[in-house]
Amino acid sequence: MAPSNIPDIVVGRLPIYLRTLAHIARGGQEVTSSYEMGEHLGISPAQIRKDLSHFGEFGKQGTGYNIEYLREQLRRILGVKQEWDVALIGAGAVGKAILRYDGFRGSGFRITAVFDNDPNKIGCKISQLDVIPAERMTSTIQQMGIRVTMLAIPAENAQRVAERLVEAGVEAILNYAPINVIVPPHVYVQHLDPVVALQHMTYYIAPKPTQALNPIISALDPREIGSDNIVHL
Amino acid sequence: MAPSNIPDIVVGRLPIYLRTLAHIARGGQEVTSSYEMGEHLGISPAQIRKDLSHFGEFGKQGTGYNIEYLREQLRRILGVKQEWDVALIGAGAVGKAILRYDGFRGSGFRITAVFDNDPNKIGCKISQLDVIPAERMTSTIQQMGIRVTMLAIPAENAQRVAERLVEAGVEAILNYAPINVIVPPHVYVQHLDPVVALQHMTYYIAPKPTQALNPIISALDPREIGSDNIVHL
Repeated sequence: MAPSNIPDIVVGRLPIYLRTLAHIARGGQEVTSSYEMGEHLGISPAQIRKDLSHFGEFGKQGTGYNIEYLREQLRRILGVKQEWDVALIGAGAVGKAILRYDGFRGSGFRITAVFDNDPNKIGCKISQLDVIPAERMTSTIQQMGIRVTMLAIPAENAQRVAERLVEAGVEAILNYAPINVIVPPHVYVQHLDPVVALQHMTYYIAPKPTQALNPIISALDPREIGSDNIVHL
Repeated sequence: MAPSNIPDIVVGRLPIYLRTLAHIARGGQEVTSSYEMGEHLGISPAQIRKDLSHFGEFGKQGTGYNIEYLREQLRRILGVKQEWDVALIGAGAVGKAILRYDGFRGSGFRITAVFDNDPNKIGCKISQLDVIPAERMTSTIQQMGIRVTMLAIPAENAQRVAERLVEAGVEAILNYAPINVIVPPHVYVQHLDPVVALQHMTYYIAPKPTQALNPIISALDPREIGSDNIVHL
């Protein structure tokens, strides 16, 4: 169970497996297979089995996975059997969309504090939470023992605010600001930037100069540029 | 230049390099290095040099990279020297936040059509765009020749709408719905799901059962669970 030797890319697929199991379970099914999961995900069954095998034996050859058991195990591995209090920094358009997002239910996360520095927003209620002034961010996060945050503020403030969050004890930052933030090694950051995701895809669909010069080869093998068409977070 | 043999994980880092170069350039700098870029990104300079070397020679040993030249080359490689028209499906909270997001400027993408099936939204203007009824989605996308879309609709409709988009000629879908959508091999999908990103991080920060049982080893090597703390898209 010591996770030190497990590639981060494998870890990153576990939440996607968990989400897929939830989806399959909604249809009333109790058992699934790496084959069925792979169909939902565009990932090979062998890859799914290999990823899961890093963490133990969760199914039997020929009988598949008990969905509830595997979900429970994945929740344990990902640390979401508990519910984490999450602080949201920024109550602008992105922050409001996050607060209204209903996908957090049952995910292991609950937004319990929201901060902004705009006097017009402070004190307003969004999704039953009062917007707290930014100057009370550090003390509130410390009092509430919050370790997980979402950063939905302009790029120019992101690094400075991330540093204050780390000082307050935060260990995980989901960053919506379109800039990398640098944090100490014990803190984890994930960036969700639509531009990065879009440019990743246009790499594959844009006309390629070499193809334009060689239309016969392109016509013979139009799929040469694509490999795995599902690009995971 | 044929991209068929370049790992997708390398491709996925190019937009992040492009964003970082824009950030460095904003300070007025004209030249940078893999070392400086690495400092901004938490990636080793050797990794950056190796990634870029897949696509050509962009700098000279000892003199670094000309920022404008490297940005231009990355834009070319990623297919964003042109500006792509993007259709947004869904004008709910997430869709509105996307429409108001100012990070698309200069990124190679411009949202030029927005669709919804809610009669209360149809015809409304959001960020200077009229919300178009969903039944005109296919015809409008075909008329405008749109190949890139953003999907900001509830999970239960995502697969069905994605299939309609593919039929209309769409080749890239940025999916905000918290579900995997399955598309033919020539279509690319990226998923932006905050729950997946958060669970990826709690894997690292949650107390580990083995550590709880063995507090002396944990105390000796508190960082054993962490490796690369910047987890990229």
